[in-house]
Amino acid sequence: MKKSSSRPHHYLDIKRLIALTDGVYGVALTLLVLDLKPLGNSTELIPTLQQLFPRFLIYILVFGSVIGYWTIHHRIFQLVRYGDGKLVLLSLLNLLFVTLYPVAASIVGSFPTQPMAIVILSVNSLFYCLSAWAVFLYISKHPYLLSNASHFDRLNRMALIMAFTMLGLFLSIPLAFISVYLAYAAFILCVPLAMVLVRFTIRP
Amino acid sequence: MKKSSSRPHHYLDIKRLIALTDGVYGVALTLLVLDLKPLGNSTELIPTLQQLFPRFLIYILVFGSVIGYWTIHHRIFQLVRYGDGKLVLLSLLNLLFVTLYPVAASIVGSFPTQPMAIVILSVNSLFYCLSAWAVFLYISKHPYLLSNASHFDRLNRMALIMAFTMLGLFLSIPLAFISVYLAYAAFILCVPLAMVLVRFTIRP
Amino acid sequence: MKKSSSRPHHYLDIKRLIALTDGVYGVALTLLVLDLKPLGNSTELIPTLQQLFPRFLIYILVFGSVIGYWTIHHRIFQLVRYGDGKLVLLSLLNLLFVTLYPVAASIVGSFPTQPMAIVILSVNSLFYCLSAWAVFLYISKHPYLLSNASHFDRLNRMALIMAFTMLGLFLSIPLAFISVYLAYAAFILCVPLAMVLVRFTIRP
Amino acid sequence: MKKSSSRPHHYLDIKRLIALTDGVYGVALTLLVLDLKPLGNSTELIPTLQQLFPRFLIYILVFGSVIGYWTIHHRIFQLVRYGDGKLVLLSLLNLLFVTLYPVAASIVGSFPTQPMAIVILSVNSLFYCLSAWAVFLYISKHPYLLSNASHFDRLNRMALIMAFTMLGLFLSIPLAFISVYLAYAAFILCVPLAMVLVRFTIRP
Repeated sequence: MKKSSSRPHHYLDIKRLIALTDGVYGVALTLLVLDLKPLGNSTELIPTLQQLFPRFLIYILVFGSVIGYWTIHHRIFQLVRYGDGKLVLLSLLNLLFVTLYPVAASIVGSFPTQPMAIVILSVNSLFYCLSAWAVFLYISKHPYLLSNASHFDRLNRMALIMAFTMLGLFLSIPLAFISVYLAYAAFILCVPLAMVLVRFTIRP
Repeated sequence: MKKSSSRPHHYLDIKRLIALTDGVYGVALTLLVLDLKPLGNSTELIPTLQQLFPRFLIYILVFGSVIGYWTIHHRIFQLVRYGDGKLVLLSLLNLLFVTLYPVAASIVGSFPTQPMAIVILSVNSLFYCLSAWAVFLYISKHPYLLSNASHFDRLNRMALIMAFTMLGLFLSIPLAFISVYLAYAAFILCVPLAMVLVRFTIRP
Repeated sequence: MKKSSSRPHHYLDIKRLIALTDGVYGVALTLLVLDLKPLGNSTELIPTLQQLFPRFLIYILVFGSVIGYWTIHHRIFQLVRYGDGKLVLLSLLNLLFVTLYPVAASIVGSFPTQPMAIVILSVNSLFYCLSAWAVFLYISKHPYLLSNASHFDRLNRMALIMAFTMLGLFLSIPLAFISVYLAYAAFILCVPLAMVLVRFTIRP
Repeated sequence: MKKSSSRPHHYLDIKRLIALTDGVYGVALTLLVLDLKPLGNSTELIPTLQQLFPRFLIYILVFGSVIGYWTIHHRIFQLVRYGDGKLVLLSLLNLLFVTLYPVAASIVGSFPTQPMAIVILSVNSLFYCLSAWAVFLYISKHPYLLSNASHFDRLNRMALIMAFTMLGLFLSIPLAFISVYLAYAAFILCVPLAMVLVRFTIRP
């Protein structure tokens, strides 16, 4: 009756992989906030707040997208029952780009109007999506890792959302050199737009 | 017999949401402490300690309220059995204000006698409570997410405690401009007062 | 058959309390290490290492004692089956002194030869032990929270270890004003000595 | 049917040990990234990126090896069913070297071309492996801690991988004094080489 006992013994338990992943996401989300703290030598409140405000907006933006990516990870792995060595490896590669998020966010926070800074954020997000896509592809080719083969169609929807998201991220790179604000718009809107697009095209 | 197998398949497992939440709370609690560390260039112990003391008091205050909010979250989600996309989204919005706590605490720690600093702490707490209230409202309208419908009355008590807490936080904003110490008092006392009020009015 | 379903409904699930606790311990252990990193402006390796070495020793010392306290917590809560509001509150008070550990360690790391710095570390450890003792006392008076009443004698052994540890910590305070090295010795030896003492006096 | 009820009562639950371990790994992975953030006083993007680039390469290197060691830990503890006091102690000693990783990485990041810096990284990795080896040895002498005695041969393969890895790490120490790049190569290649070697010699 217990999953672990009926599992072929070369399969790996994914509970710990998920625990590590959630831990890394939790720390990454909270570390992002370190950039928002007033520096030790600040002596007046209002100028300090004015100086922190653009970083605050970028924090909201990055928090939103990390949460969005966590949600994608959550939904993919909710369907996964077993892991194997390669799935673990691909997931850990995916995790690398989560840990690099605070760096990218910090660079954007320091240079919010420089195209190259936004490109770094978009490229990191793209690599995140590509590695998540690789996880998806691997699972789709090894359906015995899923808890239920009928969940397959839901994975396909997820993959389509990710494809549209990647398109948006990709577009934000040239846009950054036209106007950083267009690039921010592409970056912000790609996930919700992708979700809406998929909802209205696939469900029926 | 296993919850996960009997779950309608569009419901989401909330275990990972809770794990992420606890991780973020754990990191937030510990990050709060970074402001208390002596700076690298401090050369004498006693002046360093004197300088750290107001930050220590604010740490105790903020630790207490983060713990209080964790307890509210704990009690609400103890009654929740399933999640769905919107519940997860509302919970993650709630989490945003947890991660902003170290920032608000750091601003108060840097400017403990400035009304605007306390207003920032109160406003962040208010948004935390409002988003927790939104989670509560959502659950109360979707009772099939609860593990037991009879737990409903307990959720109502929780909501009343939160309402009184929000009242206290709201009061602390104008009070900050009269006296920061009154605002601190309102901030500190709102949760215990709310608990006492609810205990004596509802239980019988 | 499931614990949660047979639980009286005013009891609280302690799994999340334990998850939060382990999260805080994990972060605290890792934050301790931040003091060991070379500062941004260091230009030569050997002097940097020499400067970090006393902090390294203190790191080992503090890592050891945090781990020791985690072990005590682990052993106490292994016996606990249910929680209630007061147990959660006492445990969270206990957690406060875990989060203050990196601060105390950082103060000792900055001023390793000043008695007052070691006193701060000892006082924080004492408060940790006192709050752990309060948890123990509360459990011992509410044996229906335990998973098995026969485990009671094991809790008593744990309490005795903690009592001896507190004695050692208490002794380290006056010793710090005679010689900081004696205080370090008392601080280091109190847990292993307490364990040995209890092992040889109680087991038979 | 539940593991915990059929467990001899002096055995310890290892779930919390694993949760603490995953928490520490998660935080360590994310802390590593702090070195990559632009300093507060940086005013131009491109020089900042150029300055961060060697640290980025070292981050990838260290992320990879921490992930490799986590995988080893994961595979060993997947086979372990029960813990006892000594296993917990050895595991916590192992954890010490995980928390020291960000320090070693930070030293290498500050002084990437100095042999002594790489020696520190290699020595820390060696101590990590030695303590993991001690865990392995302890388990192999106490097979009743395993979830299934037939898993024994898989532990042996794991041990062989670790032995080859330690050989590579040990070699990187003298190599560092010949050329730091050779030492980096030994450091990077030891885990994958060890895995390949074991795969081709043992499996048939």
